[in-house]
Amino acid sequence: MRNLRLAVEYDGTEFSGWQVQPGLRTVQGVLEQALSVVLGEAVSVRGAGRTDAGCHARGQVANARTASAVPCDRILRSLAGLLPKDAAVHEVREVAPTFDARRGAVERRYEYRLLSAPAPLLRRFAWYPGFLPAPETLAAAVQPLIGEHSFRGFAGADPARRGDHGRCCVLRAAWRPWEGGMLFEIAANRFLYHMVRNIVGTAVKISRGGLPLERAAEALAAGDRRLAGPTAPPQGVCLAGVTYLPEHEAASGPRADWQLVRKGGLVP
Amino acid sequence: MRNLRLAVEYDGTEFSGWQVQPGLRTVQGVLEQALSVVLGEAVSVRGAGRTDAGCHARGQVANARTASAVPCDRILRSLAGLLPKDAAVHEVREVAPTFDARRGAVERRYEYRLLSAPAPLLRRFAWYPGFLPAPETLAAAVQPLIGEHSFRGFAGADPARRGDHGRCCVLRAAWRPWEGGMLFEIAANRFLYHMVRNIVGTAVKISRGGLPLERAAEALAAGDRRLAGPTAPPQGVCLAGVTYLPEHEAASGPRADWQLVRKGGLVP
Repeated sequence: MRNLRLAVEYDGTEFSGWQVQPGLRTVQGVLEQALSVVLGEAVSVRGAGRTDAGCHARGQVANARTASAVPCDRILRSLAGLLPKDAAVHEVREVAPTFDARRGAVERRYEYRLLSAPAPLLRRFAWYPGFLPAPETLAAAVQPLIGEHSFRGFAGADPARRGDHGRCCVLRAAWRPWEGGMLFEIAANRFLYHMVRNIVGTAVKISRGGLPLERAAEALAAGDRRLAGPTAPPQGVCLAGVTYLPEHEAASGPRADWQLVRKGGLVP
Repeated sequence: MRNLRLAVEYDGTEFSGWQVQPGLRTVQGVLEQALSVVLGEAVSVRGAGRTDAGCHARGQVANARTASAVPCDRILRSLAGLLPKDAAVHEVREVAPTFDARRGAVERRYEYRLLSAPAPLLRRFAWYPGFLPAPETLAAAVQPLIGEHSFRGFAGADPARRGDHGRCCVLRAAWRPWEGGMLFEIAANRFLYHMVRNIVGTAVKISRGGLPLERAAEALAAGDRRLAGPTAPPQGVCLAGVTYLPEHEAASGPRADWQLVRKGGLVP
Protein backbone atom coordinates (compact mmCIF):
# COMPACT_ATOMS: atom_id res chain seq x y z
CA MET A 1 0.00 0.00 0.00
CA ARG A 2 1.23 3.48 -0.86
CA ASN A 3 0.30 6.45 1.30
CA LEU A 4 -0.28 9.73 -0.58
CA ARG A 5 -0.06 13.17 1.01
CA LEU A 6 -2.19 15.85 -0.70
CA ALA A 7 -2.00 19.65 -0.35
CA VAL A 8 -5.54 20.94 -0.88
CA GLU A 9 -7.10 24.37 -1.47
CA TYR A 10 -10.82 25.12 -1.66
CA ASP A 11 -13.39 27.86 -1.78
CA GLY A 12 -15.87 26.54 0.78
CA THR A 13 -18.79 28.75 -0.32
CA GLU A 14 -20.60 26.00 -2.17
CA PHE A 15 -19.47 23.02 -0.07
CA SER A 16 -21.29 21.59 2.94
CA GLY A 17 -17.93 21.51 4.74
CA TRP A 18 -15.04 19.08 4.55
CA GLN A 19 -16.50 15.87 5.87
CA VAL A 20 -18.49 13.41 3.75
CA GLN A 21 -22.21 13.56 4.45
CA PRO A 22 -24.81 11.55 2.53
CA GLY A 23 -26.52 13.59 -0.18
CA LEU A 24 -24.37 16.70 0.37
CA ARG A 25 -21.55 18.18 -1.68
CA THR A 26 -18.45 18.08 0.53
CA VAL A 27 -14.75 18.62 -0.18
CA GLN A 28 -13.81 15.16 1.09
CA GLY A 29 -16.55 13.65 -1.09
CA VAL A 30 -15.43 15.47 -4.23
CA LEU A 31 -11.78 14.50 -3.58
CA GLU A 32 -12.60 10.84 -2.93
CA GLN A 33 -14.65 10.69 -6.10
CA ALA A 34 -11.92 12.21 -8.28
CA LEU A 35 -9.16 10.11 -6.69
CA SER A 36 -11.18 6.92 -7.15
CA VAL A 37 -11.38 7.65 -10.88
CA VAL A 38 -7.64 8.36 -11.14
CA LEU A 39 -6.55 5.39 -9.04
CA GLY A 40 -9.14 2.95 -10.33
CA GLU A 41 -10.30 1.89 -6.88
CA ALA A 42 -12.40 3.22 -4.02
CA VAL A 43 -10.30 5.63 -1.97
CA SER A 44 -10.89 7.23 1.37
CA VAL A 45 -9.27 10.54 2.23
CA ARG A 46 -8.39 11.86 5.70
CA GLY A 47 -8.01 15.62 6.21
CA ALA A 48 -6.10 17.50 8.91
CA GLY A 49 -8.95 19.91 9.59
CA ARG A 50 -12.64 19.18 9.28
CA THR A 51 -13.73 22.65 8.24
CA ASP A 52 -17.37 23.77 8.55
CA ALA A 53 -19.74 24.49 5.68
CA GLY A 54 -18.73 27.79 4.07
CA CYS A 55 -15.19 27.79 5.49
CA HIS A 56 -12.18 27.85 3.18
CA ALA A 57 -8.74 26.28 3.05
CA ARG A 58 -5.55 27.20 1.29
CA GLY A 59 -3.35 24.83 3.28
CA GLN A 60 -5.47 21.74 4.01
CA VAL A 61 -3.47 18.51 4.15
CA ALA A 62 -4.96 15.09 3.51
CA ASN A 63 -3.74 11.57 3.00
CA ALA A 64 -5.08 8.59 1.09
CA ARG A 65 -3.89 4.99 1.03
CA THR A 66 -3.92 3.11 -2.26
CA ALA A 67 -2.71 -0.07 -3.94
CA SER A 68 -2.47 1.80 -7.26
CA ALA A 69 0.92 2.37 -8.88
CA VAL A 70 -0.09 5.55 -10.77
CA PRO A 71 2.85 8.00 -10.37
CA CYS A 72 2.28 11.10 -8.23
CA ASP A 73 2.77 13.62 -11.03
CA ARG A 74 0.17 11.84 -13.14
CA ILE A 75 -2.28 11.81 -10.24
CA LEU A 76 -1.72 15.55 -9.83
CA ARG A 77 -2.38 16.28 -13.51
CA SER A 78 -5.43 14.02 -13.65
CA LEU A 79 -6.94 15.62 -10.54
CA ALA A 80 -6.58 19.05 -12.16
CA GLY A 81 -8.85 17.86 -14.94
CA LEU A 82 -11.36 16.07 -12.72
CA LEU A 83 -11.88 18.40 -9.76
CA PRO A 84 -14.47 21.19 -9.85
CA LYS A 85 -13.18 24.77 -10.04
CA ASP A 86 -13.70 25.43 -6.33
CA ALA A 87 -11.28 22.70 -5.19
CA ALA A 88 -7.69 21.99 -6.20
CA VAL A 89 -4.86 19.68 -5.20
CA HIS A 90 -1.53 21.50 -5.41
CA GLU A 91 0.79 18.65 -4.49
CA VAL A 92 0.71 14.86 -4.34
CA ARG A 93 3.63 12.95 -2.82
CA GLU A 94 4.28 9.58 -1.32
CA VAL A 95 4.90 9.56 2.43
CA ALA A 96 5.58 7.00 5.16
CA PRO A 97 2.82 4.40 5.57
CA THR A 98 2.20 5.69 9.08
CA PHE A 99 1.56 9.29 8.00
CA ASP A 100 -1.91 10.33 9.13
CA ALA A 101 -2.94 13.84 8.09
CA ARG A 102 -5.35 14.18 10.99
CA ARG A 103 -3.69 12.46 13.94
CA GLY A 104 -0.13 13.37 12.93
CA ALA A 105 -0.63 17.13 12.71
CA VAL A 106 1.26 18.97 15.45
CA GLU A 107 0.08 22.46 14.49
CA ARG A 108 -2.87 23.85 12.56
CA ARG A 109 -3.04 27.48 11.50
CA TYR A 110 -6.33 29.24 10.87
CA GLU A 111 -7.10 32.75 9.65
CA TYR A 112 -10.24 34.81 10.11
CA ARG A 113 -10.79 37.96 8.04
CA LEU A 114 -12.86 40.92 9.21
CA LEU A 115 -13.95 43.68 6.82
CA SER A 116 -13.90 47.33 7.83
CA ALA A 117 -16.69 48.08 5.31
CA PRO A 118 -18.94 46.03 3.00
CA ALA A 119 -16.62 44.91 0.20
CA PRO A 120 -18.14 43.10 -2.80
CA LEU A 121 -14.77 41.76 -3.95
CA LEU A 122 -13.89 40.25 -0.56
CA ARG A 123 -17.28 39.32 0.86
CA ARG A 124 -16.99 35.57 0.16
CA PHE A 125 -13.85 35.34 2.28
CA ALA A 126 -14.47 37.77 5.12
CA TRP A 127 -17.10 39.07 7.55
CA TYR A 128 -18.24 42.66 7.95
CA PRO A 129 -19.60 42.89 11.51
CA GLY A 130 -21.28 46.24 10.82
CA PHE A 131 -18.58 48.38 12.44
CA LEU A 132 -14.80 48.68 12.53
CA PRO A 133 -13.44 47.00 15.70
CA ALA A 134 -10.51 48.78 17.38
CA PRO A 135 -7.30 46.78 16.78
CA GLU A 136 -6.13 47.23 20.41
CA THR A 137 -9.38 45.81 21.78
CA LEU A 138 -9.29 42.85 19.42
CA ALA A 139 -5.71 42.16 20.51
CA ALA A 140 -6.50 42.50 24.21
CA ALA A 141 -9.55 40.23 23.87
CA VAL A 142 -7.59 37.26 22.49
CA GLN A 143 -4.42 37.72 24.59
CA PRO A 144 -5.60 35.51 27.52
CA LEU A 145 -6.19 32.58 25.17
CA ILE A 146 -2.52 32.01 24.37
CA GLY A 147 -1.09 28.93 26.07
CA GLU A 148 -2.49 25.58 27.11
CA HIS A 149 -6.06 25.61 28.40
CA SER A 150 -9.31 23.73 28.13
CA PHE A 151 -11.29 25.59 25.46
CA ARG A 152 -14.69 24.15 26.46
CA GLY A 153 -15.90 27.75 26.87
CA PHE A 154 -15.29 28.32 23.16
CA ALA A 155 -16.51 24.98 21.80
CA GLY A 156 -19.69 24.70 19.75
CA ALA A 157 -20.37 21.24 21.23
CA ASP A 158 -19.22 20.38 24.75
CA PRO A 159 -16.16 18.12 24.28
CA ALA A 160 -16.76 16.56 27.74
CA ARG A 161 -19.75 14.69 26.30
CA ARG A 162 -17.29 12.71 24.22
CA GLY A 163 -14.94 12.27 27.16
CA ASP A 164 -12.59 14.92 25.75
CA HIS A 165 -10.81 17.28 28.16
CA GLY A 166 -10.98 20.00 25.49
CA ARG A 167 -7.40 21.05 26.19
CA CYS A 168 -5.67 22.86 23.34
CA CYS A 169 -2.30 24.51 23.19
CA VAL A 170 -2.67 27.87 21.45
CA LEU A 171 0.79 28.84 20.23
CA ARG A 172 -0.15 32.16 18.60
CA ALA A 173 -3.26 34.32 18.49
CA ALA A 174 -2.79 37.73 16.93
CA TRP A 175 -4.53 40.33 14.79
CA ARG A 176 -2.89 42.19 11.92
CA PRO A 177 -4.19 44.52 9.22
CA TRP A 178 -4.97 43.10 5.76
CA GLU A 179 -6.31 44.89 2.69
CA GLY A 180 -9.94 44.58 3.77
CA GLY A 181 -9.67 45.27 7.50
CA MET A 182 -8.29 43.08 10.30
CA LEU A 183 -7.03 39.49 10.04
CA PHE A 184 -6.87 37.04 12.95
CA GLU A 185 -4.18 34.36 12.94
CA ILE A 186 -4.36 31.51 15.39
CA ALA A 187 -2.13 28.45 15.63
CA ALA A 188 -2.77 25.52 17.95
CA ASN A 189 -2.03 21.83 18.15
CA ARG A 190 -5.78 21.17 17.80
CA PHE A 191 -9.07 23.05 17.56
CA LEU A 192 -12.48 22.22 18.98
CA TYR A 193 -15.71 22.49 16.98
CA HIS A 194 -16.45 26.17 16.09
CA MET A 195 -13.51 27.28 18.24
CA VAL A 196 -12.05 29.81 15.79
CA ARG A 197 -15.47 31.28 15.02
CA ASN A 198 -16.42 31.52 18.70
CA ILE A 199 -13.15 33.24 19.60
CA VAL A 200 -13.65 35.78 16.80
CA GLY A 201 -17.33 36.29 17.69
CA THR A 202 -16.29 36.97 21.30
CA ALA A 203 -13.49 39.38 20.36
CA VAL A 204 -15.80 41.31 18.03
CA LYS A 205 -18.55 41.52 20.66
CA ILE A 206 -16.04 42.78 23.20
CA SER A 207 -14.84 45.40 20.69
CA ARG A 208 -18.41 46.52 20.14
CA GLY A 209 -18.76 47.02 23.92
CA GLY A 210 -21.30 44.21 24.17
CA LEU A 211 -19.15 42.22 26.62
CA PRO A 212 -16.52 43.32 29.18
CA LEU A 213 -12.89 42.85 28.16
CA GLU A 214 -12.35 40.27 30.92
CA ARG A 215 -15.02 38.04 29.45
CA ALA A 216 -12.70 36.01 27.20
CA ALA A 217 -10.56 35.01 30.21
CA GLU A 218 -13.69 34.29 32.27
CA ALA A 219 -15.25 32.06 29.60
CA LEU A 220 -11.93 30.24 29.35
CA ALA A 221 -11.55 29.76 33.12
CA ALA A 222 -15.17 28.73 33.69
CA GLY A 223 -15.30 26.53 30.56
CA ASP A 224 -18.79 27.94 30.06
CA ARG A 225 -19.87 28.52 26.46
CA ARG A 226 -22.68 30.84 27.60
CA LEU A 227 -20.14 33.39 28.86
CA ALA A 228 -18.48 33.79 25.46
CA GLY A 229 -19.81 35.71 22.43
CA PRO A 230 -21.71 34.46 19.40
CA THR A 231 -20.28 32.27 16.63
CA ALA A 232 -18.84 34.43 13.83
CA PRO A 233 -20.07 33.46 10.33
CA PRO A 234 -18.16 30.73 8.46
CA GLN A 235 -16.96 32.63 5.38
CA GLY A 236 -14.25 34.48 7.36
CA VAL A 237 -12.46 31.22 8.21
CA CYS A 238 -9.53 29.89 6.19
CA LEU A 239 -7.36 26.89 7.13
CA ALA A 240 -3.97 28.37 6.25
CA GLY A 241 -1.64 25.47 6.97
CA VAL A 242 -0.77 22.34 8.91
CA THR A 243 2.58 21.27 10.35
CA TYR A 244 3.93 17.75 10.84
CA LEU A 245 7.16 16.47 12.31
CA PRO A 246 9.65 15.81 9.51
CA GLU A 247 10.06 12.21 10.71
CA HIS A 248 6.34 11.72 10.40
CA GLU A 249 6.24 12.81 6.76
CA ALA A 250 9.40 11.14 5.47
CA ALA A 251 8.61 8.41 2.96
CA SER A 252 11.32 6.22 4.46
CA GLY A 253 11.82 7.71 7.93
CA PRO A 254 11.11 6.11 11.30
CA ARG A 255 7.52 5.74 12.43
CA ALA A 256 6.25 9.12 13.65
CA ASP A 257 6.34 8.95 17.41
CA TRP A 258 3.36 10.61 18.94
CA GLN A 259 4.99 10.33 22.39
CA LEU A 260 7.87 12.41 21.10
CA VAL A 261 5.47 15.21 20.26
CA ARG A 262 4.00 15.04 23.73
CA LYS A 263 7.43 15.21 25.35
CA GLY A 264 8.15 18.28 23.24
CA GLY A 265 5.33 19.99 25.08
CA LEU A 266 3.20 20.74 22.02
CA VAL A 267 0.41 18.37 22.93
CA PRO A 268 -1.19 18.37 26.38
CA MET B 1 -29.43 70.41 -9.44
CA ARG B 2 -26.83 68.72 -7.24
CA ASN B 3 -24.11 66.57 -8.77
CA LEU B 4 -23.09 63.50 -6.73
CA ARG B 5 -19.77 61.68 -7.08
CA LEU B 6 -19.87 57.99 -6.12
CA ALA B 7 -16.95 55.63 -5.39
CA VAL B 8 -18.09 52.16 -6.47
CA GLU B 9 -16.79 48.61 -5.95
CA TYR B 10 -18.24 45.48 -7.51
CA ASP B 11 -17.68 41.79 -8.08
CA GLY B 12 -18.51 41.57 -11.79
CA THR B 13 -19.01 37.78 -11.84
CA GLU B 14 -22.79 37.94 -11.91
CA PHE B 15 -23.19 41.23 -13.78
CA SER B 16 -23.53 41.65 -17.55
CA GLY B 17 -20.97 44.46 -17.30
CA TRP B 18 -21.32 48.09 -16.25
CA GLN B 19 -23.61 49.55 -18.87
CA VAL B 20 -27.41 49.35 -18.76
CA GLN B 21 -28.80 46.81 -21.21
CA PRO B 22 -32.47 45.89 -21.45
CA GLY B 23 -33.31 42.69 -19.61
CA LEU B 24 -29.80 42.20 -18.21
CA ARG B 25 -28.42 42.70 -14.71
CA THR B 26 -25.80 45.44 -14.95
CA VAL B 27 -23.95 47.49 -12.34
CA GLN B 28 -25.22 50.78 -13.74
CA GLY B 29 -28.76 49.39 -13.72
CA VAL B 30 -28.57 48.18 -10.12
CA LEU B 31 -27.09 51.54 -9.02
CA GLU B 32 -29.70 53.61 -10.86
CA GLN B 33 -32.47 51.52 -9.36
CA ALA B 34 -31.17 51.89 -5.79
CA LEU B 35 -30.44 55.62 -6.18
CA SER B 36 -33.89 56.25 -7.61
CA VAL B 37 -35.41 54.75 -4.47
CA VAL B 38 -33.19 56.80 -2.15
CA LEU B 39 -33.62 60.08 -4.05
CA GLY B 40 -37.29 59.63 -4.90
CA GLU B 41 -36.80 60.34 -8.60
CA ALA B 42 -35.46 58.66 -11.72
CA VAL B 43 -31.67 58.96 -11.73
CA SER B 44 -29.13 58.25 -14.41
CA VAL B 45 -25.57 57.34 -13.47
CA ARG B 46 -22.41 57.86 -15.54
CA GLY B 47 -19.36 55.72 -14.87
CA ALA B 48 -15.69 56.42 -15.64
CA GLY B 49 -15.08 52.94 -17.09
CA ARG B 50 -17.63 50.80 -18.92
CA THR B 51 -16.28 47.45 -17.76
CA ASP B 52 -17.17 44.23 -19.60
CA ALA B 53 -19.35 41.41 -18.30
CA GLY B 54 -17.38 39.51 -15.65
CA CYS B 55 -14.87 42.30 -15.00
CA HIS B 56 -14.52 43.82 -11.54
CA ALA B 57 -13.94 47.26 -10.06
CA ARG B 58 -12.62 48.44 -6.75
CA GLY B 59 -12.16 52.05 -7.80
CA GLN B 60 -14.97 52.83 -10.25
CA VAL B 61 -16.15 56.45 -10.13
CA ALA B 62 -19.60 57.57 -11.20
CA ASN B 63 -21.69 60.69 -11.01
CA ALA B 64 -25.42 61.33 -10.85
CA ARG B 65 -27.36 64.59 -11.06
CA THR B 66 -30.38 65.05 -8.82
CA ALA B 67 -32.87 67.63 -7.59
CA SER B 68 -33.17 65.77 -4.29
CA ALA B 69 -31.90 67.37 -1.06
CA VAL B 70 -31.18 64.07 0.74
CA PRO B 71 -27.80 64.56 2.51
CA CYS B 72 -24.82 62.57 1.19
CA ASP B 73 -24.28 60.54 4.39
CA ARG B 74 -27.90 59.43 4.35
CA ILE B 75 -27.65 58.44 0.68
CA LEU B 76 -24.55 56.38 1.55
CA ARG B 77 -26.30 54.57 4.42
CA SER B 78 -29.46 53.92 2.41
CA LEU B 79 -27.49 52.52 -0.53
CA ALA B 80 -25.75 50.07 1.83
CA GLY B 81 -29.16 48.65 2.66
CA LEU B 82 -30.51 48.64 -0.90
CA LEU B 83 -27.62 47.39 -3.03
CA PRO B 84 -27.02 43.67 -3.61
CA LYS B 85 -23.98 42.09 -1.93
CA ASP B 86 -21.87 42.16 -5.08
CA ALA B 87 -21.97 45.95 -5.44
CA ALA B 88 -21.19 48.70 -2.93
CA VAL B 89 -20.87 52.47 -2.87
CA HIS B 90 -18.04 53.52 -0.54
CA GLU B 91 -18.39 57.29 -0.79
CA VAL B 92 -20.97 59.84 -1.87
CA ARG B 93 -20.06 63.51 -2.09
CA GLU B 94 -21.29 66.61 -3.81
CA VAL B 95 -19.07 67.95 -6.58
CA ALA B 96 -19.09 70.80 -9.10
CA PRO B 97 -22.07 70.74 -11.49
CA THR B 98 -19.66 70.24 -14.39
CA PHE B 99 -18.04 67.11 -12.96
CA ASP B 100 -18.47 64.24 -15.41
CA ALA B 101 -17.08 60.91 -14.24
CA ARG B 102 -16.55 59.70 -17.78
CA ARG B 103 -15.40 62.71 -19.76
CA GLY B 104 -13.51 64.32 -16.90
CA ALA B 105 -11.25 61.38 -16.07
CA VAL B 106 -7.61 62.09 -16.92
CA GLU B 107 -6.28 58.69 -15.89
CA ARG B 108 -7.79 55.25 -15.46
CA ARG B 109 -5.90 52.40 -13.80
CA TYR B 110 -6.66 48.77 -14.54
CA GLU B 111 -5.22 45.57 -13.07
CA TYR B 112 -5.13 42.09 -14.57
CA ARG B 113 -4.30 39.10 -12.38
CA LEU B 114 -2.67 35.92 -13.68
CA LEU B 115 -2.53 32.74 -11.62
CA SER B 116 0.55 30.55 -11.54
CA ALA B 117 -1.61 27.49 -10.73
CA PRO B 118 -5.35 26.76 -10.51
CA ALA B 119 -6.43 28.46 -7.27
CA PRO B 120 -10.01 27.92 -6.06
CA LEU B 121 -9.83 30.90 -3.68
CA LEU B 122 -8.69 33.35 -6.37
CA ARG B 123 -10.31 31.96 -9.50
CA ARG B 124 -13.11 34.53 -9.65
CA PHE B 125 -10.61 37.37 -9.87
CA ALA B 126 -7.76 35.95 -11.93
CA TRP B 127 -6.92 33.82 -14.96
CA TYR B 128 -4.79 30.69 -15.03
CA PRO B 129 -3.46 30.43 -18.60
CA GLY B 130 -2.33 26.83 -18.07
CA PHE B 131 1.34 27.62 -17.48
CA LEU B 132 3.48 30.09 -15.55
CA PRO B 133 4.64 32.91 -17.87
CA ALA B 134 8.20 34.15 -17.30
CA PRO B 135 8.11 37.60 -15.64
CA GLU B 136 10.88 38.97 -17.91
CA THR B 137 8.99 37.99 -21.07
CA LEU B 138 5.75 39.50 -19.79
CA ALA B 139 7.62 42.72 -19.01
CA ALA B 140 9.38 42.81 -22.39
CA ALA B 141 6.10 42.15 -24.23
CA VAL B 142 4.32 45.22 -22.80
CA GLN B 143 7.30 47.59 -22.79
CA PRO B 144 6.69 48.95 -26.37
CA LEU B 145 3.14 49.98 -25.44
CA ILE B 146 4.17 52.73 -23.04
CA GLY B 147 3.63 56.21 -24.46
CA GLU B 148 1.14 57.74 -26.84
CA HIS B 149 0.02 55.55 -29.73
CA SER B 150 -3.04 54.48 -31.62
CA PHE B 151 -4.13 51.21 -29.98
CA ARG B 152 -6.30 50.04 -32.90
CA GLY B 153 -4.20 46.85 -32.99
CA PHE B 154 -5.42 46.04 -29.47
CA ALA B 155 -9.05 47.13 -29.81
CA GLY B 156 -11.90 44.60 -29.79
CA ALA B 157 -13.86 46.82 -32.20
CA ASP B 158 -12.07 49.04 -34.72
CA PRO B 159 -12.35 52.59 -33.34
CA ALA B 160 -11.97 54.02 -36.85
CA ARG B 161 -15.50 52.85 -37.64
CA ARG B 162 -16.73 55.43 -35.15
CA GLY B 163 -14.33 58.05 -36.48
CA ASP B 164 -12.04 57.57 -33.48
CA HIS B 165 -8.26 57.79 -34.00
CA GLY B 166 -7.84 55.22 -31.22
CA ARG B 167 -4.95 57.16 -29.70
CA CYS B 168 -4.30 56.48 -26.04
CA CYS B 169 -1.55 57.69 -23.77
CA VAL B 170 -0.30 54.72 -21.71
CA LEU B 171 1.46 56.20 -18.70
CA ARG B 172 2.44 52.93 -17.03
CA ALA B 173 2.35 49.26 -18.01
CA ALA B 174 4.14 46.92 -15.65
CA TRP B 175 3.98 43.44 -14.15
CA ARG B 176 4.60 42.65 -10.50
CA PRO B 177 4.17 39.52 -8.38
CA TRP B 178 1.02 39.12 -6.28
CA GLU B 179 0.01 36.23 -4.00
CA GLY B 180 -1.48 34.18 -6.85
CA GLY B 181 1.08 34.79 -9.59
CA MET B 182 1.69 37.91 -11.72
CA LEU B 183 -0.31 41.14 -11.73
CA PHE B 184 -0.42 43.61 -14.65
CA GLU B 185 -0.94 47.29 -13.89
CA ILE B 186 -1.75 49.67 -16.70
CA ALA B 187 -2.63 53.35 -16.50
CA ALA B 188 -3.80 55.43 -19.45
CA ASN B 189 -5.88 58.49 -20.14
CA ARG B 190 -8.40 56.25 -21.92
CA PHE B 191 -8.86 52.63 -22.96
CA LEU B 192 -10.41 51.13 -26.07
CA TYR B 193 -12.88 48.23 -26.02
CA HIS B 194 -11.14 45.01 -24.78
CA MET B 195 -7.79 46.83 -24.79
CA VAL B 196 -6.58 45.56 -21.39
CA ARG B 197 -7.66 41.99 -22.15
CA ASN B 198 -6.06 42.04 -25.62
CA ILE B 199 -2.77 43.36 -24.26
CA VAL B 200 -2.70 40.63 -21.60
CA GLY B 201 -3.72 37.93 -24.09
CA THR B 202 -0.87 39.04 -26.36
CA ALA B 203 1.72 39.16 -23.56
CA VAL B 204 0.71 35.68 -22.38
CA LYS B 205 0.83 34.22 -25.89
CA ILE B 206 4.29 35.74 -26.39
CA SER B 207 5.39 34.20 -23.06
CA ARG B 208 4.12 30.83 -24.19
CA GLY B 209 6.23 31.12 -27.32
CA GLY B 210 3.14 31.31 -29.54
CA LEU B 211 4.11 34.73 -30.93
CA PRO B 212 7.50 36.43 -31.42
CA LEU B 213 8.47 39.04 -28.83
CA GLU B 214 8.37 41.82 -31.46
CA ARG B 215 4.72 41.12 -32.16
CA ALA B 216 3.33 43.60 -29.62
CA ALA B 217 5.24 46.46 -31.24
CA GLU B 218 4.24 45.24 -34.70
CA ALA B 219 0.53 45.04 -33.86
CA LEU B 220 0.80 48.53 -32.39
CA ALA B 221 2.60 50.00 -35.41
CA ALA B 222 0.36 48.32 -37.99
CA GLY B 223 -2.85 48.99 -36.03
CA ASP B 224 -3.87 45.47 -37.04
CA ARG B 225 -5.86 43.48 -34.49
CA ARG B 226 -5.06 40.22 -36.31
CA LEU B 227 -1.38 40.56 -35.42
CA ALA B 228 -2.01 40.64 -31.67
CA GLY B 229 -2.90 37.71 -29.41
CA PRO B 230 -6.31 36.51 -28.19
CA THR B 231 -8.55 38.35 -25.71
CA ALA B 232 -7.77 37.23 -22.15
CA PRO B 233 -10.86 36.20 -20.13
CA PRO B 234 -12.76 38.94 -18.27
CA GLN B 235 -12.44 37.77 -14.67
CA GLY B 236 -8.79 38.88 -14.43
CA VAL B 237 -9.71 42.54 -15.01
CA CYS B 238 -10.21 45.01 -12.16
CA LEU B 239 -10.73 48.76 -12.56
CA ALA B 240 -8.45 49.91 -9.75
CA GLY B 241 -8.94 53.66 -9.83
CA VAL B 242 -9.66 56.86 -11.75
CA THR B 243 -8.00 60.26 -11.46
CA TYR B 244 -9.52 63.70 -12.03
CA LEU B 245 -8.02 67.16 -11.90
CA PRO B 246 -8.67 68.68 -8.47
CA GLU B 247 -10.37 71.68 -10.10
CA HIS B 248 -12.73 69.35 -11.88
CA GLU B 249 -13.88 67.69 -8.68
CA ALA B 250 -14.14 70.71 -6.38
CA ALA B 251 -17.73 71.45 -5.42
CA SER B 252 -17.09 75.18 -5.75
CA GLY B 253 -13.98 75.36 -7.94
CA PRO B 254 -13.66 76.72 -11.48
CA ARG B 255 -15.16 74.73 -14.31
CA ALA B 256 -12.86 71.83 -15.20
CA ASP B 257 -11.01 72.85 -18.28
CA TRP B 258 -10.62 70.02 -20.71
CA GLN B 259 -8.25 72.17 -22.81
CA LEU B 260 -5.97 72.42 -19.79
CA VAL B 261 -5.66 68.66 -19.68
CA ARG B 262 -4.74 68.60 -23.36
CA LYS B 263 -2.08 71.26 -22.87
CA GLY B 264 -0.63 69.18 -20.03
CA GLY B 265 0.05 66.47 -22.59
CA LEU B 266 -2.07 63.78 -20.98
CA VAL B 267 -4.66 63.70 -23.73
CA PRO B 268 -3.66 63.43 -27.39
